[in-house]
Parts: sequence; structure tokens; C-alpha cells
Amino acid sequence: MKLSKLCAEITLPFNGDDIDITGIGTLDSANANQLSFFHSPKYIESLKSTKAGAVLIEEKYLEYLPSHSIALLTDEPYLKLALATALFAHPLSNESEEPTLLEGAKIDESVKYGKGVEIGKDTLIMAGCYIGDDVKIGDRCIIHPNTTIYHGVEIGDDCIIHSGAVIGSDGYGFAHTADGRHIKIHQIGGVIIENSVEIGSNTTIDRGAIGNTVIKTGTKIDNLVQIGHNCNIGENSLIVSQVGLSGSTTLGRNVIMGGQSATAGHLKIGDFAVIAARGGVTKSLEGSRQYGGFPAVEIRLWKKMQVALSRLVKK
Amino acid sequence: MKLSKLCAEITLPFNGDDIDITGIGTLDSANANQLSFFHSPKYIESLKSTKAGAVLIEEKYLEYLPSHSIALLTDEPYLKLALATALFAHPLSNESEEPTLLEGAKIDESVKYGKGVEIGKDTLIMAGCYIGDDVKIGDRCIIHPNTTIYHGVEIGDDCIIHSGAVIGSDGYGFAHTADGRHIKIHQIGGVIIENSVEIGSNTTIDRGAIGNTVIKTGTKIDNLVQIGHNCNIGENSLIVSQVGLSGSTTLGRNVIMGGQSATAGHLKIGDFAVIAARGGVTKSLEGSRQYGGFPAVEIRLWKKMQVALSRLVKK
Amino acid sequence: MKLSKLCAEITLPFNGDDIDITGIGTLDSANANQLSFFHSPKYIESLKSTKAGAVLIEEKYLEYLPSHSIALLTDEPYLKLALATALFAHPLSNESEEPTLLEGAKIDESVKYGKGVEIGKDTLIMAGCYIGDDVKIGDRCIIHPNTTIYHGVEIGDDCIIHSGAVIGSDGYGFAHTADGRHIKIHQIGGVIIENSVEIGSNTTIDRGAIGNTVIKTGTKIDNLVQIGHNCNIGENSLIVSQVGLSGSTTLGRNVIMGGQSATAGHLKIGDFAVIAARGGVTKSLEGSRQYGGFPAVEIRLWKKMQVALSRLVKK
Repeated sequence: MKLSKLCAEITLPFNGDDIDITGIGTLDSANANQLSFFHSPKYIESLKSTKAGAVLIEEKYLEYLPSHSIALLTDEPYLKLALATALFAHPLSNESEEPTLLEGAKIDESVKYGKGVEIGKDTLIMAGCYIGDDVKIGDRCIIHPNTTIYHGVEIGDDCIIHSGAVIGSDGYGFAHTADGRHIKIHQIGGVIIENSVEIGSNTTIDRGAIGNTVIKTGTKIDNLVQIGHNCNIGENSLIVSQVGLSGSTTLGRNVIMGGQSATAGHLKIGDFAVIAARGGVTKSLEGSRQYGGFPAVEIRLWKKMQVALSRLVKK
Repeated sequence: MKLSKLCAEITLPFNGDDIDITGIGTLDSANANQLSFFHSPKYIESLKSTKAGAVLIEEKYLEYLPSHSIALLTDEPYLKLALATALFAHPLSNESEEPTLLEGAKIDESVKYGKGVEIGKDTLIMAGCYIGDDVKIGDRCIIHPNTTIYHGVEIGDDCIIHSGAVIGSDGYGFAHTADGRHIKIHQIGGVIIENSVEIGSNTTIDRGAIGNTVIKTGTKIDNLVQIGHNCNIGENSLIVSQVGLSGSTTLGRNVIMGGQSATAGHLKIGDFAVIAARGGVTKSLEGSRQYGGFPAVEIRLWKKMQVALSRLVKK
Repeated sequence: MKLSKLCAEITLPFNGDDIDITGIGTLDSANANQLSFFHSPKYIESLKSTKAGAVLIEEKYLEYLPSHSIALLTDEPYLKLALATALFAHPLSNESEEPTLLEGAKIDESVKYGKGVEIGKDTLIMAGCYIGDDVKIGDRCIIHPNTTIYHGVEIGDDCIIHSGAVIGSDGYGFAHTADGRHIKIHQIGGVIIENSVEIGSNTTIDRGAIGNTVIKTGTKIDNLVQIGHNCNIGENSLIVSQVGLSGSTTLGRNVIMGGQSATAGHLKIGDFAVIAARGGVTKSLEGSRQYGGFPAVEIRLWKKMQVALSRLVKK
């Protein structure tokens, strides 16, 4: 899409040299044919080094924009971004075509596909599943009945996905208007699930807003877990039932999240950390330690807090 | 149904003037052809002003019943109500008939309907969905695969419902017998979802017990959220993942419920209130303030409590 | 399977008298033709009295093994158990055969079955459900659309299961290798749901690891509840929305678990106990009392703790 057309669609004036815009990226990820946006001063360093072809930006930050990026001036860059995402969203339909099935793939006749699906060797897909456009599933996977996999999701080898799981649904992202309405940021990223991952029944894993949600090899996820958009979960992590990971949570390898524990967004938990059941993580945490409570602290400290509270009552 | 027959079905004596009973209502909502019930002294004012044709009531409260209402005397009005709801429950079946589809509606061939379904213009319903009897869906909606919409649910225009969501399942309501069994209160209300509402994957929204569960225009609900029967959620509210709203919770407009927060039943949260992640609301709260903790208090106070607790341990 | 072959499959040496092994049991449940395992000193009494035909065991505990049991020596009994479970797991497939339907059973034409299914009188199974191999469902049940019931689940009479519920998915069980990988313990137990049980939408009930998950007569389970493997829930219990029961939780009769409450694994809650909403149970609790908070204590004590904390702040 020509940048001039894009600007017309999102009702921004445009008068400069026109370029082709093929997608949307963050300031760090966007290339010379992608649109990006600057909506918070905390990303100022990313702004200075962006390679984006064009950037939605308030005039007061214009001085930090590299000269190779076209400025799209607006008082509401995040709202204009939301409008722009609609232009790059995957077109949903009920169109279907025969998938590419490798040897030994066994797909129940009731399974519905989109277009461009590829299923690996000896993979079993059971009744009532939906496999969206361009989904790729590796070898020896088991997809239990009534699972839904949205368009573009990639799943490696030896994965097990239990019934009712939803992989690749839209992350929860909205820009807000001055009068209190919420404008959808179409979620144009994907989901990459590596090898030997198990996903429990009725667990939900959202696709990335921009860029991917990633679940690395060997991670095991229990039932009714929520994985927000753009989470990145390291190898061999264990995510117990009813955990909620907010958007852009990064877990290291072999992290354990106990039942009903949760994280706020945009934080990192180091390798081999253990979050006890119900722990509520509100900031990034170092690896190889145990944490608990809400806000989560080292678990010994949390236990002391419980003891202190009990003593208060006994006085 | 004749009141005399209704009484016979729920094993109550009946000797007075017979009337037609067409449904069940609360003391406040019931009309002269509806049955109601009085099971708690806190509703005494509603009893005094009820317009119900007949009321299940203990003899000791009889003096407060208006003379135009027929008294159905019982020591167990709530249990008798439960039995009566069975007589007005929607009859479930696998019967189907062609829905009314407006121009541009695109329904996957695998979608199953009940009877009397109406689908609006340019609405997309994807594979594996179930659309129950008398469901009405407006224009330009997207219903993702494997969504279930129970009978009688009404959905406005421009709504998005993600996979695995269940709209209109039975609320959790039981009357209890003296020997500890639980008798189902058939849920005879409905669900009304207005316009531009988005509902996340595997979220559950229960139908009203009597009267409707209502989600107003512009509200966005994340994944794995539970909305109990007869909740009423105002315009442009944001309900983040894994929130649980107990029955008859009323939210104002532009309320924010953070991830894993929850409410006890029968309370109100004012316009523009923010409940922080994990907040557990146990009583009604004023609008335009931020709350957190469990039991939820103003968030500044909750933060002070956390600091105080930390200090206790350091002593 | 011959024990010699089983040992070859899990790469253990075997030189003794060969026997037939027909399954896997716990030390307490295994018979003379079953394999068992000893992986924790806390089960030493069970080891001494086991009737198992063969036991995976570390050499240092060999003296406690009864002479009628064959010792399978290994430094990693739990890991070898995991490998052995794969040999007894139910073979998944898309094969189907006509179910046995008793009089009045009404099954939607879109329902998919495995083999050996039996459906009772006047039971209604709605669109999009999956009913796995050897499932037995009793009389007068209602299975709402898009429900998934895995192989071998047994459901009694007069049960209601709401949409999106998943009954019999794999429990969350893994053995861990020295290099941090997780090896699946195939879940070879089942699920038994007795009579008059109601299960809410998108609730998940895992099958037993070894032995069964059991839900007894009259229990009512709300939406989005997680029941872990080998839980045993007594008669007429009430499990409110978003509760999480960890594996091997035992509830007595008429226990109430409030919304979002949870239990750690391997504990017992006595008859008529009430766990308040959000209560987090970390140890076994006596019946006929009310508990709340996390870790859960008697609710009066928890309320005092909240008051004490409030006072601290006011000082």
C-alpha cells in the first residue's frame, strides 16, 4: 500500500515523497517499508535508532526522528496506529482449501481448514478442530477434539494440544478516544510454538500485536491458562493451571509458575525462577530464586509476612 | 399455564380464583400474569409494592402482600420457585431450521442452528459454531470458530466473539433442600449484548436467572472471563483476562477491571472506577477512584498496607 | 505385556522370572499383574504392604519390598514410570463406530464418537460434541453444544454439562530429567461422574493419572473451574466459578468452594466445610467450619488479620 493511501485511510494529511508500506513494526523492528509509531517517551532511544520508513509521531518529538524516516504528524499516534492496523489485518473468511498433509497425518473428516494449511507426518487432528489459514503443524502432534487454531500459527513437532484450547486469538489491545471509546488494535502478529510443547484444555494463547507470541521447546502448559500477546516463554517452563501472563511477559528457561499465579505485563522472569501458587509478579525478577505473595517477593519474606500478620492478631 | 396447574406441578395446595400464569418475575418486575416469590426480609419493600399475580410466600409475611396478589403459602418459597422455573424453561432439542440471513451474511456450512435464528448483514460466522433457538445477531459481527451461543441471546452490531466463548449458559442458581441437595433454578432470563462489544476466547457469560444479563455498547472483554447471571456492565468498560463477576454485579460506564480481579454478587461499581489486577471487591464502590487488594480498598491504602506489612517483618 | 518386554522398552535390565503385566497401579492399588513404583520415602508403609507384581525402586529401599514383588532397580523410578505409562496409554485415533443408544436418546447428527460409546435413555447430546471411546453416559442427561468428553469417562444419570466443558483431558503430570526436560506421565486413569451433577461452561476435569477422578452425586460445578487429576469430590458439594483444585484433592460431602478459591494438592477438606471466595487452602481442613484467606485459616481469624492490617496503616 502506498503511504499516501494509508494516510488517507486513517485521515492524516500527507504531502511528501510517497513510498510503499508493506506492514507495521515497532520502532526497533520496523524496516524501511514499514510503518511505526512513537507513543511514549520511554521509547525515545528506540525512536532515535529506528529504521522505519514512516513513523506516527507528535510534533514535539520530531527532533528525535532519524532523517530517513517520514514523519506522520498527529496528536494521537496510538489511535492512528489502531486505525492503520485494520489495513494490515488478515482477512477472515470461511474459504477453505485442501491442506498439504505429510505421510501418516490423520485428520478427522469433521476438521475445518482455511487455506494454505500444512500438517506434518503422523500428526493426529481429532474431531471438530478448526485450523486457520496458513497454519503449519509439525510431525507427531496430537490435536485433541474441538481445538481452535487461528490463522498463521506455527506449531513444531511432538506437541500435544488439549481440547478447547484456543491458539492465536486476538490479544487485548485498544487505543482510547478522548470520549472514552476503545478502538481495536488489530493483532497482526503470530504465534510460534516450538517442539514438545503440551497445552492444556481450554487454555488461551493470544497472537502477537506486532511480532510473535513464542512458546519454546519443552514447555508444558496446564488447563485454563491465559498467555497474553507477545509473551515469550523459555524452554522447559512449567505453567500450572489458571495462570495468567499479561502481554509481553518474558520467562526464561525452566521457570515454574504455580497455579493461579500471574504477571503484570512487560516484565522478565529469569531462568529457573519459581513463582509459588497465587504469586502475583509486579516487576522483573531474577532467576534461580523462589517467589510468592502479591506483590511477589522472595518466598521466605512472604512467609515471614504471614507469620507477622498472625502474631498481630494474637496480641 | 393455569395457576391451579402450576401449583399441582410443584405440589402446593390451591383453592382460590384461577388465573393464567405466563412466566416468572422478581417482586419488582412481575406483572399480573406472572409468578413471583418472597424469600428474604430484605426485599420487604418490593413485596409491599409488587404487581405479581401470585407470590410464593411464608405465612408470617402474608400481611405485607398486596391484596391483588394471590398468596401461595409455603415454608420453602425458594425451593418451590426452583420447581416452578422448570415449567418455564426453554425446551432444548436438536431441531433446526434455516436461519434468516440478511445480505452479505457468511455462515460456514458446519455451523449448527436451532430455530428462529436471525443473522445481520455482512456478519461472518466461522466453522463449528452453535447458534441456539431465537438468537439474533446484528450486522458486521465476527463470530470465530467453535463459539457457542445459547438460545435467545441477542447480539448487536459490530461485535467480535472469539473462539470457545460460551454466551448464555445457565447461571449458577440452586435452592437447597433440608437434607442438603441442590435443586436447579432453571435460568429463564436471557443475554443482551449491545454494539461494538468484543468478547475474548473461552470467556463465559451466563444468561439471567430471571431478567437479562446485559453487556452495553463498546465494552471489551478479554479471555477466560466469567460473567455471572444478571450482571449489567456499562458502556465502554474494560474487563481484563480471568476476571470473575458474581451474579447481579452492576458496573457503570468505563469501569476497568484488571486481570484476575473479581466481585462478590449484588453490588455496584460506579462509572470510571478502576479495580487493579487481583482486586477482590466485596461491597459497592464509588466511581472515578482506583481500588485494589482483597477486600478491595482505595489503592493508596492498599499500598500502605503492603508497606506496613513489610516493615513489620524488618523489625 | 511380558515384564521382560516392558523392561526392554524402558531400557531397564531384566533377568528374573517373567510375568504378565496388564497395567500400572499405585503401591496401594496394584495387583500381582501390575507394575508399581516407589519414588518418595513418605510412602514407605505402602511399599511394605504392596501386592504389586513388580516395583520400580532404588536399590537402597530394596529391603522394604515384599518378597512377592519383583524389584526393577533404577536410580530414577519416577522417570522410568513415565516411560512405562506410554505403554499402557489409550491409543488415540479418529476411528468411530455407531454408539449404543437407549430409547429416547437424541444425538445431533454433527456429534462425533469414538468406539464403544453407550448413551442412556432420553439423554440429549447437542451439536459439535465429541464423545470418546468407551464413554458411558446415563439417562436423562443434557450435554450442551461443543462439549468434549475424552475416552473412558463415565457419567451417571440426570447430569447437565454445559458448552465447552472438557471432561477427561490429561492431568498435568511429568517426570523430570537431570537436564531439565519434562517427560509425560501418560494419564491412564479415568473420570467417574455420578448422578445429578451439573458442570459449567468451559470447566475442565482431568482424568486420573492412575485411578480415577471422581465427582459424586449431586455436586454442582460452575464455569471455568479446574479439577485436577485424581480429585475426589463428595456428594452435594458446590464449586463456584474459577475454582482450581490441584491434583488428588479430596472434598467431603456438601463442601462449598467459593469463587476463585483453590487448593494445593493431596489434601482433604472435611464434610460441610466452607471455603470463602479467593480462599487458598494449603493443608487439610476439618469439616463444618468456614475458612478464608491465603493461606486459608478460619474465617474469623482471617477477618481479624485484615482489621489488624488496617489499624497498622492508620497509626
